[in-house]
This record gives sequence, C-alpha cells and structure tokens, in this order.
Amino acid sequence: MKMIHIILYFLALLLSYTSNVTSSVNDFCVANLLLPNTPSGYPCKSETLVTENDFVFSKLVPGIPISPFNAGETSASVTNLPGLNGLGISAARVDIGINGTVPMHIHPDATELLIMVEGQMTAGFITPAKLIVKTLNPGDVFVFPKGLMHFQLNSGVGKTYAFAAYSSTNPTLHIIDYLLFGNNLPTPTIEKTTLLDYAQIKKLKAQFGGSG
Amino acid sequence: MKMIHIILYFLALLLSYTSNVTSSVNDFCVANLLLPNTPSGYPCKSETLVTENDFVFSKLVPGIPISPFNAGETSASVTNLPGLNGLGISAARVDIGINGTVPMHIHPDATELLIMVEGQMTAGFITPAKLIVKTLNPGDVFVFPKGLMHFQLNSGVGKTYAFAAYSSTNPTLHIIDYLLFGNNLPTPTIEKTTLLDYAQIKKLKAQFGGSG
Amino acid sequence: MKMIHIILYFLALLLSYTSNVTSSVNDFCVANLLLPNTPSGYPCKSETLVTENDFVFSKLVPGIPISPFNAGETSASVTNLPGLNGLGISAARVDIGINGTVPMHIHPDATELLIMVEGQMTAGFITPAKLIVKTLNPGDVFVFPKGLMHFQLNSGVGKTYAFAAYSSTNPTLHIIDYLLFGNNLPTPTIEKTTLLDYAQIKKLKAQFGGSG
Amino acid sequence: MKMIHIILYFLALLLSYTSNVTSSVNDFCVANLLLPNTPSGYPCKSETLVTENDFVFSKLVPGIPISPFNAGETSASVTNLPGLNGLGISAARVDIGINGTVPMHIHPDATELLIMVEGQMTAGFITPAKLIVKTLNPGDVFVFPKGLMHFQLNSGVGKTYAFAAYSSTNPTLHIIDYLLFGNNLPTPTIEKTTLLDYAQIKKLKAQFGGSG
Amino acid sequence: MKMIHIILYFLALLLSYTSNVTSSVNDFCVANLLLPNTPSGYPCKSETLVTENDFVFSKLVPGIPISPFNAGETSASVTNLPGLNGLGISAARVDIGINGTVPMHIHPDATELLIMVEGQMTAGFITPAKLIVKTLNPGDVFVFPKGLMHFQLNSGVGKTYAFAAYSSTNPTLHIIDYLLFGNNLPTPTIEKTTLLDYAQIKKLKAQFGGSG
Amino acid sequence: MKMIHIILYFLALLLSYTSNVTSSVNDFCVANLLLPNTPSGYPCKSETLVTENDFVFSKLVPGIPISPFNAGETSASVTNLPGLNGLGISAARVDIGINGTVPMHIHPDATELLIMVEGQMTAGFITPAKLIVKTLNPGDVFVFPKGLMHFQLNSGVGKTYAFAAYSSTNPTLHIIDYLLFGNNLPTPTIEKTTLLDYAQIKKLKAQFGGSG
Repeated sequence: MKMIHIILYFLALLLSYTSNVTSSVNDFCVANLLLPNTPSGYPCKSETLVTENDFVFSKLVPGIPISPFNAGETSASVTNLPGLNGLGISAARVDIGINGTVPMHIHPDATELLIMVEGQMTAGFITPAKLIVKTLNPGDVFVFPKGLMHFQLNSGVGKTYAFAAYSSTNPTLHIIDYLLFGNNLPTPTIEKTTLLDYAQIKKLKAQFGGSG
Repeated sequence: MKMIHIILYFLALLLSYTSNVTSSVNDFCVANLLLPNTPSGYPCKSETLVTENDFVFSKLVPGIPISPFNAGETSASVTNLPGLNGLGISAARVDIGINGTVPMHIHPDATELLIMVEGQMTAGFITPAKLIVKTLNPGDVFVFPKGLMHFQLNSGVGKTYAFAAYSSTNPTLHIIDYLLFGNNLPTPTIEKTTLLDYAQIKKLKAQFGGSG
Repeated sequence: MKMIHIILYFLALLLSYTSNVTSSVNDFCVANLLLPNTPSGYPCKSETLVTENDFVFSKLVPGIPISPFNAGETSASVTNLPGLNGLGISAARVDIGINGTVPMHIHPDATELLIMVEGQMTAGFITPAKLIVKTLNPGDVFVFPKGLMHFQLNSGVGKTYAFAAYSSTNPTLHIIDYLLFGNNLPTPTIEKTTLLDYAQIKKLKAQFGGSG
Repeated sequence: MKMIHIILYFLALLLSYTSNVTSSVNDFCVANLLLPNTPSGYPCKSETLVTENDFVFSKLVPGIPISPFNAGETSASVTNLPGLNGLGISAARVDIGINGTVPMHIHPDATELLIMVEGQMTAGFITPAKLIVKTLNPGDVFVFPKGLMHFQLNSGVGKTYAFAAYSSTNPTLHIIDYLLFGNNLPTPTIEKTTLLDYAQIKKLKAQFGGSG
Repeated sequence: MKMIHIILYFLALLLSYTSNVTSSVNDFCVANLLLPNTPSGYPCKSETLVTENDFVFSKLVPGIPISPFNAGETSASVTNLPGLNGLGISAARVDIGINGTVPMHIHPDATELLIMVEGQMTAGFITPAKLIVKTLNPGDVFVFPKGLMHFQLNSGVGKTYAFAAYSSTNPTLHIIDYLLFGNNLPTPTIEKTTLLDYAQIKKLKAQFGGSG
Repeated sequence: MKMIHIILYFLALLLSYTSNVTSSVNDFCVANLLLPNTPSGYPCKSETLVTENDFVFSKLVPGIPISPFNAGETSASVTNLPGLNGLGISAARVDIGINGTVPMHIHPDATELLIMVEGQMTAGFITPAKLIVKTLNPGDVFVFPKGLMHFQLNSGVGKTYAFAAYSSTNPTLHIIDYLLFGNNLPTPTIEKTTLLDYAQIKKLKAQFGGSG
C-alpha cells in the first residue's frame, strides 16, 4: 500500500467528520469508497464534497468480447457510480458478437431486467420446476428473477446488444464455468458433486485457469 | 362489470387454489392481476399457468409525445410484465422531441436510473441542499435518487431518447403541474400553499384540466 | 475544521473500539454522530457510553413561525435524539399561526402521521388519481402516505398545532417553493419544466432567495 | 357468522376485482379489512372506493383508565385507520390517572416514541445490560426501542397524558401480568419458569383472570 | 380438481372472513395454505383456527438417500410448518451415506447454516474470488452465504448428518445437474453456454431425465 | 485499553482500506469486529483477509447448566462466527438438565426455531390471545415467533437438548427474572408495575443480584 493511500484515507475520514458536524446526509448517501463497505452499503461521503459527477457514469460503452464466449459487459455500479449507494439498482450494457453467448450464470443478489436494443437474443432461465426460454428482439424487455441460473445466446445474424438493469447496486457475476473450473477445487471433488467425467473437468480446468 | 369478468375472477381463484395444493410457488411469484394487490405485491399466479410470456413485455416502443411537453414514455411494469411481481424493478423508454421536456416530477417510491441512447438531454434533481444538473450524451448513466423532484430537457439538436430503470415494480409518475393544476383543489388553497399568483394558477388549471 | 474536532473524532473512534471488544451492541444502536452515516443509519455508540439522555429529547417546543407562511416546526430526529438510530421513527411539533399554512411539500422518505392537539387544520395530499382533503380538529389523526405532496392550512379562528410522527429517523422537508425558487436553476429551465410564467418565477425567486 | 357478512364479503371481493382491471393501486394501499391479512399487511381496497375518511381517525380521546392500573389507551391503528396499511406507523393516546401506571409490557413488533403533553411521567426500559429510566415533562420525547420491556409511572401530582407513535401499523400490547397470570398456564409451570412463589402466582391469577 | 377441494376452498375463505371481523392477527400470521401465496408469504389463517400444531413439525426424520448421490433431506418449511409464515426461517435434516455427497447446488433465496451432529462432512462454497472449503465435525457450525454455489461430501468413515437452518420460510433447492440436465433445454444450447462436450451432456441428460 | 489494541485497530482500518481499492466485497460481508457496529451489521472485513475460518464456529458444545435453572446455552452468532454478518441467521445449542428449565424469556429481535435432538421438552409461548404449549420429542421442530415470551421445561426423565436457529445474527436473551430482579430498579417501582408483592420482589432481587 502506498503512503499516498494512507494519507488519502485519513483525509477521507477527516472530511467525512467535517460534514457530519455541519449537515446531515439524508436525501442521498453517496458512497465514500475509501471506507469499508457495510451490509447496507458504503458510508456516506460528506454532502459538501458531493458533485453532479457522483450521479453519472459516462462510459457505458460496448462490452469488449471475452474469449471464448464472444460476449462482453460494461457495468455502471456503485464502484464507478457512487450515487447509487443504498438505492438498490444498477445498470450494464451487454454485447454479444455473432454466434456468441453469455454463458450460464447467476447473480446471487439481483434480479436482472434486459432491455433489447439491437439484433436478436435467445434468453432463458431455469428452475427445478420450469424452463423459460424466449427469443428477444429490439423493444423486448425480459426479466430473470433474482438468483436463478440463466443464459443468453446471439440467435440472430449480426451482433446484438441490450441494456441490463439490476436490483442491486453492485451485482456479482457467477459464471458456472468459472466457479467449477477456475480455481483449485480438486477434480475428484468436482467429479463427485457434479457427476461430470474426469476428462471433461480437466479439459475445462485447462480452459478456465483451474488446477487441482 | 361484465359477467365474463366475474366468471374469470372465480376461475382465477379456483386455479390458484389448484396450484397451491400441488406445488409451491417460490423461485418467482408471477402477479395474478385479477386478485387485489397487497403492500408486498400481487398474489402469485398458479405456477402451472405460468408461461415464458409472463416474463417478457414486447412493446417498449417509442413513447408518444404528449402535448405541450413534446415527450412520451412507454413502461414495462408489473401490470404488463407480471413476472416482475415482488422483484422491485421495472423499466421504461423515455422519448423527448426537439425542444421538448419531461416536466418537473417525482416518483414517490422509486429511484430512477437513466441510460442515454440517442441525442442529448439535460437532467437534474433538486434537494433543499443541492441542485444537481448534468448534460447527458449516449453512453451516460444518471441516477435520480428515490423521491426527489427531477426533470429532463432535450438540450440537443435532434430527438433524444433514453431507457429508464426503476427500483419499483410499478412506479408512479407525479408531475407537479398535474398535482397542482389537474384537479379541483381550490385556487385560494393553491395560492396560499404555493404563493403562486391567482391568475397564474387559473391559467395552468385551464391547461391541465383543473377546476375550482 | 478546528483541531478540537479532530481530537474528538479520534477519541470517538477509540471509544467505539473499546466498547466493541468488551460488549456487543444489540438491543439498541445509539447513533455515534461523529462517524459518517450509512444507508442503514449511523454507526453505534459504545454501549458503555450510552446514558438515558440518549433516549430523550427535551425541547419539543412550539415551532417558531417562519415568514411568509406563519408556521413553524420543531423536530426530534436522530441528530438530536440519537437513540432513534436504526428504528425508523421520529417526531415533530407543527405550529401554524392564524391564517398560516404549511406550504406544499414532500417528505421523500417518510409517511407522516398528524395528531391534532389544538385549533383546526385543513390537511390534504395529492396523487395523480386522487385529491384527499380533510378538515381536522383536536383528537383527529391523519396520515399522509410516504412521498406524496401535501399541505396544511390553519382553517380555524385561533392558532393551531399538532404533533407529527414520521416513518424515518431523519425525514427531510422538501417545500416545493424552495426546490423551485430557492436555488440557481435557470429561469428558462423552470419555465419549460413547469410552464410557470417568467415573471411569476422571477417574483418567487426574489422571495425564496433564488437566482438565475 | 351472519349471512349479511357473507354477502358483504363477496361484494368486497367483487369490488376489489373491479378496481384491479381499471386502475392500479400504488401511491397508497388502503386496507380491505374484509379480506385476510398477509405478512406485509391487508390486501388493498379498490382505489375507486377510497375516500378521505380512510386516512383519518377521529376519536383519539382520552383512554379510559383500566383497573387496577388507573391508566388507559386509545389507538389509531390499521383496523380503525385503514390508510395506514403497509406504511409501518400508528399512534395512540396514553392517559395515566393520579398514582397510576402503565404496567411492565412489551410491543414485540414496534418501537414506541412517547410525546409528553401534560403532567409528569417516569418512563423506563430494561435490557440485560442497561436500565434506562427518565422522568418526563411536557415537551419531552422519549424512545422505547423495539421489543424491549418498559413501563411508565405517573410521577406528578395530577393526571398525565402523552401521545405515542409506533413503528408498526398494528402494534400489540403484551402486559407481563396478563401473559403470566391471565390464562390457564399451570401454576407449577409458572413457578418453575419464573421462580415466583406459588401463593404469589395464585394471588395474581385471581386478579388477572387466570386459572390452572 | 376434486369437488371436495372447491368446497374446502370456500370454507377457508369464509373462515378467514369470520376471523377478520372478530380479531386481528398480529403476533403471528399462520399460513392459510389454501389461499394463493404473495411476495411476503401466505395470507394469515384465522386466529380462532390456530392451534399448537401449527407451530410444530414432528417428522424431521433422516432424509432418504437419493441415488446416485446417496444423500437425502427432510424439510420443515412453511408448507408443513405453517407457523413459520412471514418469519424468514426454516430447517432441515441432511443425511449423507458412506461415500455420498450433496451435489453442487444453490438456494437462490436463503443463507444456510449447517449444524454438524454426526460423522464428518467436507463443505464448500465458491465465488468468483474465493473458494472456501472446510472439513466439519460434530459441534461445528458452518455458513453458506445466500445464493452461493455449494456442496457437501461425506469425508468420514461412517454415515454423517447435520441439521440445516435457512433464512427463508421455503428455500428452494437448485441442484446444478437437475438445472442443466433434467429438462428439455437443447443439447447445443447447453454446449454453447457451458462448453461441456456433447457426449457429456447426453450422458448426464440420460441420468437426470432430460431430453433435447 | 491496551496499546496493542489501538495498534490493531489502526491496522484493521488500514487493511480494510487496502481491500477497498483492490476488490469489492459483495458475495459476503464478513464482520470486521474491530470497527463499530451499524444498524445493518458490522463493516466488512477486507476480502483478502477472509479465510474459511470466518465461516465456521467449532465449539457448539453442550451448554453449561446455570443455577438455579439447570439449563445452559452455547451460541454461534456474529461475534464468534463473523461470516454470519448481514445474513440474518445464527444458531445455538440448548441443554436442559433433569428437572431443569429455560426460564420465561424473550428474544426481542428474533424468531427461534427449535430442533429437538434428545430427551423431552415442553415448550410454550404466550400472547394476549393465545397460550401455545407443546411437548416435544426428538425430530420435532417448534417455532417461537419473533418477540414473544416463551419457555422450555425438561419434561422427560433424563437430560434433554435441542439446537436452536434464530432469525438474527446476534439475538439477545431477555430473561424476565433478570430484567425485573437483576438491576437497581426500585422495589416500589416493580411493585407498582407488576403488582408483585414487596417480599416476593426482595426475595428474587436477592437471588438475581438486584438492589434497590
């Protein structure tokens, strides 16, 4: 940790102190990202330090496609849009190249609302009782309820993209492949708990950076 | 009320009964819009009646501009996208014509997240302590915290539109002009509680359909 | 910032540390107002420092009438009654002089419950679908649901006062006039987003301290 | 159950159906007390049936003193002020006669905020770690945090009364004496779980209507 | 649907009506499982019909081992313990035979707390940033945070069992294998969104009852 | 306070700072017990410092019987199982010796779910409207709804024990005897607010350490 960080940290603490004796923060609670998070969100930044830039994120650019899925995401969440703190919402842009896919994944703490803009996607989510799959075109809005496993496929002829809104200020992305094959969970444990074959696991561990 | 509605209603009740004895509804709670709402949302539709269409709204078309503001909104909320029930999120498309505006308004129960797509908007919200105003371009994401008075102006040369996400399944739109001038609240009461001039109130009551 | 404040701040931090290693704070969480707020409320003061005075506010005196409305409010909220922290409730006393009014306003984060004590008030709130107005006398209890625009008028012959309870530990008061006319939001922007006349806006900006 | 009740019930259901197909209930959810409660509150009454009287309770008169405590309470809760439904707040008036007391009790689901109006009360609450007791005079506001055992004594020379606000739409009153001595819990069980003497228990059971 | 069910249903509605006009349900809200669920839980059963049996479930017997995992679970949730309604908690007993496993799964809406009773389990959960694995013995309590993928292995020499508590009244069990291979999601879609091999998918679809 | 504690404290602050600039804490928020609690729980420990031991508590041993009740409890709550932070659940083991009892008590902020393992208990809770008592045997699961007064008796011939789960990360135990007789609340105040006899109060104050 650089000394400059320590200095910034105490500066942050002192500034938050200043604000608290002069005004109460209430109509909003902009995240002070230099202080530790809490279960309800980050401590509030001093109101006197809040500017219009705390409420805007300006680079919701196309997501850079990640190999091998040929899809990418750009996010506007509390860490780059601190005005979202405590408000339970965030956004992203999801781009899928030709023949690409957003692989099977879960957002453990967020419902996702997908707003189709261009191209065609086939989206689906899975519960023990239901398989819900729908082909989406521009103007379609689709909801993936909180915590359910879901995926998207580019099912059109060109590129496709959509905006996504989440019911969390900082949703996490749990791609099944990375969970299973991107760490050092022993292959026999994976075999036993998924019934996948040994060779299959080894092959995917090689692809997703896992060992063990 | 048409007899067909009464029949549909009892059918709805009976069908929800059927589902409850055979399966539990848990991973989602699709709104049964025929039963009365509750503070936490609509009662759940029988899981056996749920289809993929309950999770999609297919007409998030451009909003038809409303006079005199030259702006319009199309919404995907729980009443037309029943899969949103209980999930605390919804979406809309906001279109503003040349020189148009989304007038001063409030969503009493929702934060709004604006995702700019085309043109240029100037957006702002107001608290007793802060005036936050920002000019937005495509790729910008702006947050209006819950319950705060806000507005948008088309500040570009052509049309402009954005998508909006809300932290509520059915946000309501409280336009200040309609609240003050669109009902029969007596003019002297408005004068006294806003300090607006009598003539000004009468002029706007004429425009927004108010009387008294 | 005075040096004494910095010293008090570190003292506060150290004392909260002391308490955390010796006892857990659970049955209540009295606000440590020297530390930054969070979305769920202030960090808890050390239980060993908590006294009966943290749970009482002793000056809910008549509100001093503010010109030109001839009404005033005194509040018991978390900033002067720190025992309220995390409990979602607070109180106030609302006094309206003869011919006075509590102007059109909103509490973005709180329902208000009005308990009439003396005199007569006419209270109302407005939604796009309903205008609710009621004349209240001592012994009447009236509810303004969360986030809705509302007002009160002294409709009796003498002074009137009521107690108010709020579903928030620190409700904010958003008077429409101060939001629209008490800052430097440009007059053309207000014209466009409210349809109020230029002269009307200028007149009220002069009254409420706004510019632009 | 009278036939008239059955008819009213189906009428209520049908009317709630009518409203749901014509308008959405959102800015408020007035309790339909004829339908079963839910964990989040009562189903909403049809908006077309809502009137200003749903938001007012007009008889917050002095509580009739109950023997032997010489104290009484009048409540404005969701069952007589249905506009409170889903809003998490309610009110009461608490009157204590000369030498009277509000006996040891608990509100399992509500914080209580006491606003002193007349006379003098000594109020207190108890946790395993702290005993908080305070003498209150008019203008004092005191908070009893949620779920804690508390009491009030008239410690002045005349009558005393206060208003109370609760963080629940329908707080329940659990007086320790009624819980322990007002039912048929066997005396040996009470002896064992409280270490009170047999004779003491029998004496209080006689007073509070208990048997066993 | 049998006629007897329809009759029971109307009986349930009528009985809930009876209770609502005679008493308010507040200290608890026992589920009326015959009425449709809501996002906050089931409507409350009439308090006059509530008995001690609504608060007890008497068969938390060893779970019957399910092939091929050699593990089984018995649950006490709101559908068989209706007193849990609205209280956000439930329980289960988890038994794992020799060499058995609770396969990779997710509870989308619940944290799980595991209380070890007999034998030895190795438990783990996975996030993109962390792999947490721990061998557990009787007396150990382990927490799987809400929505995270997790598993248990019998890592001892004999049978093993534990009790589980969940932060939901009706947690659902999403076993990855059943989500991926137990329905008719087309094999090419699974291939593309998981990168599993075609033959592997076909093999597991055969095992878990999937087609397509 | 020892100097080592002060050093540890600043170390904790610095480490939490380090983590916040390098990674976001989201899938879990392990309690940093060195920083002050908040209404939503403790600030999060740096993710880089989190280990598997933060999610396990290894000593849920039999509770040591406390005189005179001959019952004891061991708890796994956020203070010794910091991974529970923000997750709303915790556990305990409750042991009751022959002829012993868990005396009348309340958990103001938690529902309790009792999972019977050995022996026989009679458990009960009390509301103004209902007395619920049930004899429990191994395999029974019983729920004490949040905030209600309850008790357990060993009603079998040998020792008995159960596991308990709570809907709170740090439930507090309010034993009626300790609240009434374990502090310096004046005997006349207790007499007046409970109607217990003077001699009875004095006798129990002697037993539970109270004075006054």
